[in-house]
Amino acid sequence: MMQRIGKHIRDRRLALGLSVPRLANAAETTTRYMEMIEAGSRYPSLMTLFRIAAALDTTASELLVGVEAPLASVG
Amino acid sequence: MMQRIGKHIRDRRLALGLSVPRLANAAETTTRYMEMIEAGSRYPSLMTLFRIAAALDTTASELLVGVEAPLASVG
Repeated sequence: MMQRIGKHIRDRRLALGLSVPRLANAAETTTRYMEMIEAGSRYPSLMTLFRIAAALDTTASELLVGVEAPLASVG
Repeated sequence: MMQRIGKHIRDRRLALGLSVPRLANAAETTTRYMEMIEAGSRYPSLMTLFRIAAALDTTASELLVGVEAPLASVG
């Protein structure tokens, strides 16, 4: 799931022509942390995800579409 | 935003007739923490949000729909 979130963020950032440092700054995080999120090696906090989404002119909900593989639910 | 996420979770839980302890257990968290999430006094981590969504037979993306008030984006 982390990889998919990272990919969605990265694809959107590239489509907007933003650099990682520019996005990191707008999302009030560090370039290093932003790189790890995009690489799928870190989950952003929900608050950071909201800030990333806003900086990418989208929503956290949009960034998470299709990220979850079908998981078991309470019977 | 926290209130809206909590409300979405609570509405969905009630629609499925689940108790807070039952949902908390399925989402591998505590009843107390689940109560705070629903009350909007705590943000779940992204991982916990995924587990809550799975336990509610929905997705994190769905639970976050409409949660964000329009925020500034990078110009």
